Amino acid sequence: MDRTNPIGFFDSGIGGLTVVKSVTEILPNENIVYFGDTARVPYGGKSNDTVVEYTIQAANFLLRKNIKLLVVACNTASSVALKELKKFLTIPVIGMIEPGSKMALQETKKGIVGVIGTRSTIGNKAYSNEIKRLNPKTKVYEKACPLFVPLAEEGWINNKVTGLVAKEYLTELKEKKIDTLVLACTHYPILNEVIQKAVGKNVKLVHSGIPAARIVEEYLNGRGLRNISNQLGKREFYVSDVPSKFQEIAEIFLGKKITHLHKVELDELTNE
Amino acid sequence: MDRTNPIGFFDSGIGGLTVVKSVTEILPNENIVYFGDTARVPYGGKSNDTVVEYTIQAANFLLRKNIKLLVVACNTASSVALKELKKFLTIPVIGMIEPGSKMALQETKKGIVGVIGTRSTIGNKAYSNEIKRLNPKTKVYEKACPLFVPLAEEGWINNKVTGLVAKEYLTELKEKKIDTLVLACTHYPILNEVIQKAVGKNVKLVHSGIPAARIVEEYLNGRGLRNISNQLGKREFYVSDVPSKFQEIAEIFLGKKITHLHKVELDELTNE
Repeated sequence: MDRTNPIGFFDSGIGGLTVVKSVTEILPNENIVYFGDTARVPYGGKSNDTVVEYTIQAANFLLRKNIKLLVVACNTASSVALKELKKFLTIPVIGMIEPGSKMALQETKKGIVGVIGTRSTIGNKAYSNEIKRLNPKTKVYEKACPLFVPLAEEGWINNKVTGLVAKEYLTELKEKKIDTLVLACTHYPILNEVIQKAVGKNVKLVHSGIPAARIVEEYLNGRGLRNISNQLGKREFYVSDVPSKFQEIAEIFLGKKITHLHKVELDELTNE
Repeated sequence: MDRTNPIGFFDSGIGGLTVVKSVTEILPNENIVYFGDTARVPYGGKSNDTVVEYTIQAANFLLRKNIKLLVVACNTASSVALKELKKFLTIPVIGMIEPGSKMALQETKKGIVGVIGTRSTIGNKAYSNEIKRLNPKTKVYEKACPLFVPLAEEGWINNKVTGLVAKEYLTELKEKKIDTLVLACTHYPILNEVIQKAVGKNVKLVHSGIPAARIVEEYLNGRGLRNISNQLGKREFYVSDVPSKFQEIAEIFLGKKITHLHKVELDELTNE
């Protein structure tokens, strides 16, 4: 494996770009290959079997790009498929659950943590299991918020409706006196302000992008795989579908222009 | 082709069950095979190429069940892929656009019609083209309402939020003085009351289920293919994924219990 090999990122769609954003901020010289499974998005309401199948197909696609490290930049896929992935991959894999859980434990003072995510992530109790494994005394309250993803993608960020939806979902967590809330879906940082308002300004919001980026950095340093070039890394983006407005929405999530965008045919994923 | 062969129904997910409901009400003795592509739902935000590819795979799957007639019980697939389907199918195909458009023209008195649907259905102008083809003098105003599907699936039917979303989407159509509104997505009948309230009680709501069912009946009568058995038809349901709560939600859409539910592996669809 070479230092100049790219880091692979995978998400069900575009949400994972918020994680790419965090990684490129601290590791601007790394080459990056991103795959978003936009032809089959969203994963959050699908069964575990289906999510595992899609995730393995995506990992195989990225392996063919000679990635040195895989970041599963999708909470649903991380909560469902990480163990399966680790069984067959020889390169390191970083999911969203561990970095998000550790950061939540660093932040909480009262030991009362809330977690919000898709139906699948919450149904699998991925975060509460991980947080309690790390610190069994922590109280964890979880809540699925399926409307946050379509609201973020509709761009209703400062909208009254989004505020009401947030209140409807989050009041029960507020009443549990959480002091830390994990945004366990890569779309949710887009709704940061609305969520903060709904839970109150004293609750610390945590998402996995920044802690995951730090773990990526540690891994690369530890294994001598950090790209030491002083040039800005190459960033390639692959998606299984390019619907209208895709690029526009994707650039909001990434916070930058996307120049190298390619479409992958589904056959290339499924006919392994 | 035999009278006892089943009618095939296809939808991206569960919305098409509202069409099955209409058909079984007037044709209770017909055998039915339904396929819902729940592993790749929703189609409404995806590109035309992807929707055509998925629709052809679904049609091929249903053809192997010896269907005598195909109902594309999905507005997005109807608006994007019906022409392609007709090119290669030898059995009749009924989409949602023509029946819904005809019914809108029967209902409108002022000749001012609104159409609401997914981003894809509206972006393709499928209804406005069809309505204007049938009656060029009609004024048609269209509006994509991407949040209605997740709201219906979240079960937020009598919720304040859904009322606000409906108002946000529909006020501009109300201001155009429409007297008829086509619900051009099979999920929307679930939100009938909220939509009615947002546009006012004088606007007639139209959806394709009932007129499509009448066209199915005409076709079968005209071709001597009506099932003349006096027994209740057999109803089989196939889906590409069975997420948690699937059956519960599906039964709300169908208005009946589902007894014959089978999972189709994606390989069976894609490896044609």
